Amino acid sequence: FLAGPKTCSIIGAPIGLGQPLIGVERGPSVIRKAGVVSRIAKEGWRIEDTGDLKFPHVSAVVDPPNLKHAVHVGSFNEVLHNQAYDHAKNGKFTLVMGGDHSIAIGSISAILRARPDVGVIWVDAHADLNTNLTSHSGNIHGMAVSFLMNHIELSNVPGFGWLAELNKQHRLLPERIVYVGLRDVDAPEKIRLRELGIKAFSMQHIDKYGIGKVMEMSLDYLCGKQSRPLHLSVDIDSVDPIFAPSTGTVVRGGLTDREAHYICEATCETGLLGSMDIVEVNPILAPGDGAHSTADMAARLVGAALGDTIL
Amino acid sequence: FLAGPKTCSIIGAPIGLGQPLIGVERGPSVIRKAGVVSRIAKEGWRIEDTGDLKFPHVSAVVDPPNLKHAVHVGSFNEVLHNQAYDHAKNGKFTLVMGGDHSIAIGSISAILRARPDVGVIWVDAHADLNTNLTSHSGNIHGMAVSFLMNHIELSNVPGFGWLAELNKQHRLLPERIVYVGLRDVDAPEKIRLRELGIKAFSMQHIDKYGIGKVMEMSLDYLCGKQSRPLHLSVDIDSVDPIFAPSTGTVVRGGLTDREAHYICEATCETGLLGSMDIVEVNPILAPGDGAHSTADMAARLVGAALGDTIL
Amino acid sequence: FLAGPKTCSIIGAPIGLGQPLIGVERGPSVIRKAGVVSRIAKEGWRIEDTGDLKFPHVSAVVDPPNLKHAVHVGSFNEVLHNQAYDHAKNGKFTLVMGGDHSIAIGSISAILRARPDVGVIWVDAHADLNTNLTSHSGNIHGMAVSFLMNHIELSNVPGFGWLAELNKQHRLLPERIVYVGLRDVDAPEKIRLRELGIKAFSMQHIDKYGIGKVMEMSLDYLCGKQSRPLHLSVDIDSVDPIFAPSTGTVVRGGLTDREAHYICEATCETGLLGSMDIVEVNPILAPGDGAHSTADMAARLVGAALGDTIL
Ligand SMILES: [Mn+2]
Ligand SMILES: [Mn+2]
Ligand SMILES: [Mn+2]
Ligand SMILES: [Mn+2]
Ligand SMILES: [Mn+2]
Ligand SMILES: [Mn+2]
Repeated sequence: FLAGPKTCSIIGAPIGLGQPLIGVERGPSVIRKAGVVSRIAKEGWRIEDTGDLKFPHVSAVVDPPNLKHAVHVGSFNEVLHNQAYDHAKNGKFTLVMGGDHSIAIGSISAILRARPDVGVIWVDAHADLNTNLTSHSGNIHGMAVSFLMNHIELSNVPGFGWLAELNKQHRLLPERIVYVGLRDVDAPEKIRLRELGIKAFSMQHIDKYGIGKVMEMSLDYLCGKQSRPLHLSVDIDSVDPIFAPSTGTVVRGGLTDREAHYICEATCETGLLGSMDIVEVNPILAPGDGAHSTADMAARLVGAALGDTIL
Repeated sequence: FLAGPKTCSIIGAPIGLGQPLIGVERGPSVIRKAGVVSRIAKEGWRIEDTGDLKFPHVSAVVDPPNLKHAVHVGSFNEVLHNQAYDHAKNGKFTLVMGGDHSIAIGSISAILRARPDVGVIWVDAHADLNTNLTSHSGNIHGMAVSFLMNHIELSNVPGFGWLAELNKQHRLLPERIVYVGLRDVDAPEKIRLRELGIKAFSMQHIDKYGIGKVMEMSLDYLCGKQSRPLHLSVDIDSVDPIFAPSTGTVVRGGLTDREAHYICEATCETGLLGSMDIVEVNPILAPGDGAHSTADMAARLVGAALGDTIL
Repeated sequence: FLAGPKTCSIIGAPIGLGQPLIGVERGPSVIRKAGVVSRIAKEGWRIEDTGDLKFPHVSAVVDPPNLKHAVHVGSFNEVLHNQAYDHAKNGKFTLVMGGDHSIAIGSISAILRARPDVGVIWVDAHADLNTNLTSHSGNIHGMAVSFLMNHIELSNVPGFGWLAELNKQHRLLPERIVYVGLRDVDAPEKIRLRELGIKAFSMQHIDKYGIGKVMEMSLDYLCGKQSRPLHLSVDIDSVDPIFAPSTGTVVRGGLTDREAHYICEATCETGLLGSMDIVEVNPILAPGDGAHSTADMAARLVGAALGDTIL
């Protein structure tokens, strides 16, 4: 599914409207500043950096209940979807740098359209599996997977008409996603995970089995019987706040720096990774060293996913 | 051994006389403030919080050599024993919040009386297996297990007459305890551990096998052939000072936040846990953030032991 | 190969000319201050502390290209070699405290001469496998293994005539070394590692298998078929900067305090360890607490390698 010469397309997705805090829209800028492009180039990829997406013009529309900024989030993701689809269908590695995790809606829907059998590894402290009916906050970044699985009635949600249409054919199936790193899951999300039989490795599993075995099980689950393209969606809040403090919803007991790298390295080693999101780096939440080390980690994780190895 | 409706009885044991530092008597107060009760209630337990124990009236008596404050520690533990026994024999989950680890004398002796075949998981940087003959300090919190195993001649120790009597029938047997997290063991304790063949998993074992395997081996050792009630005695100094600094005897190289949770989660999953101590939280040793995070961790560990899970 | 009564000889090697930063020559002094001698004595070793080596008189000679301070580093290591050889051939445990990692040239060459079948465990963030032809810096501490493997043409390097001679017979063979903890390896070093088929466990392997399994594999590789004397060369920069910040080339994602101890404990448990280097403690790079904890860790690692155990 990747065409030669191997090319990495980079899309900046500077949106923060999927959550309440100012600053995450500066993610693409600080991850670039941390040297992400040269890290990718070093691994032998041609680079196509199409810069940061701009918000499309949106006519003033009232957002539906408990879907904050739906119009803007939806319209932005439509633009993102189109660009990412263009890259993916042309056989390029598609890297999307958020912004908040709502950008996975545009990103993963594009990959699903270009590579319908894609498997998703969702690395996050959170399941992002709420809906407008279960969310306490109405923040769309906590519903991204539900949008992709078509669990939210989209037909009348302004800004998401494009996804309503796409989901008829290309929605994300429960058996095509694996969670890694969960540790803060809401009660309705727990129910949904169980009902749908979604494969989820929480921090408890990582403590129990070790990250080596967890990644082996994760990749085996997605690709064991049939090799398929993989998409890696990394929420930087999966990493412990000791290592990545500058993000919106920090939760104790997270991945170590080493485990986060291991996830990216192990996924890369499959030779099946064709696209990636890196999201929720918010440089104003831990100014100074914290912001720097969080952006730096994001850049390093992208490097590891794209081929950087120790040996 | 737990009766329905499932009920958690909570006993505050604000005693610090088992060790030299001021502040650990405030443990019950700060763990309550950290929300321990609501964490338990959230898991579906009826709560019976009988508040904090008061010191009984004690006639001035001279303490025996190298058993500091024996009279007060013994008398207090007699009160604690009676209350905990009352709860345990009535089929309630019995939670005791110290205070220093000397409270395990009252607590575990009560469980042994109510549930004679109980198995104990002792999570601690220390073995607390000194006696009046081996201790350098004379602090009783470092001899708690020896009191329970009847290794100390109690007949003439004022304050401990009740235990001398009980130990005739209900003392803790060496094969009914497993240590997890040891990393600072005195020479006479090492000898005692070996002589008695006590099962002990040090930090080296946790590094060697991983916490998942260590808990599997621990629980299998205690319950493999015969399911039995379990008691979990958690000294917060088992956790690394990076995560739990506000305690009296910090030792490097401890459990991570995640490993400490794993221990409680894995014990809970057996369905056999019927009682628990949480001890040695001393809020004045790392004032501010350190005290807060230590108390918070204590509350979270109790929550995990009583049913809180990620998924 | 160790003679009774079991004796540990201690050599201070206060040299920093193998790298550019001032301070590492104070390593022996601060590690001694951290109590290393009493830690060793506690494990039942007779101590022969021959103090710190002095620089021999060196006639002014021009250093060859890209081998900074070759004359001084070479001459110093000749003195060190002679002293270490003397200890080793007399059946003593030979402990060398650097200084920078260039001291391994004198130390390991001596052990190779006294115990030709010695196996080396090299614990380091770095492979120290550059040569004068590949190094960007010309710092000899990053070429120590290449000197020992005779990858550098030594016949015309002033200061290293003694090693040129020795390497004819006693050079380090690629199959006699195992790396543990690698995480910052230069491109030419990667090629060399692969070409020579050198066994190397990077941090990724430690994440994948756990430190217990990695040490099992390391020791099995070196000693599986035939027991042989072991040499442990510990660069303190193998440990994560969170635990050992006071060293010259810190790299994120290192060994935890616990893993570093485990390596020393597991090596000790073989009963085959006969010599050790502890290097790169530089107390002026993280003055105060950082220097103290780094020196303290060095002393504790030596203690663990020489017999200190938890239980
Ligand atoms: Mn998240
Ligand atoms: Mn997320
Ligand atoms: Mn204790
Ligand atoms: Mn303790
Ligand atoms: Mn080195
Ligand atoms: Mn190094």
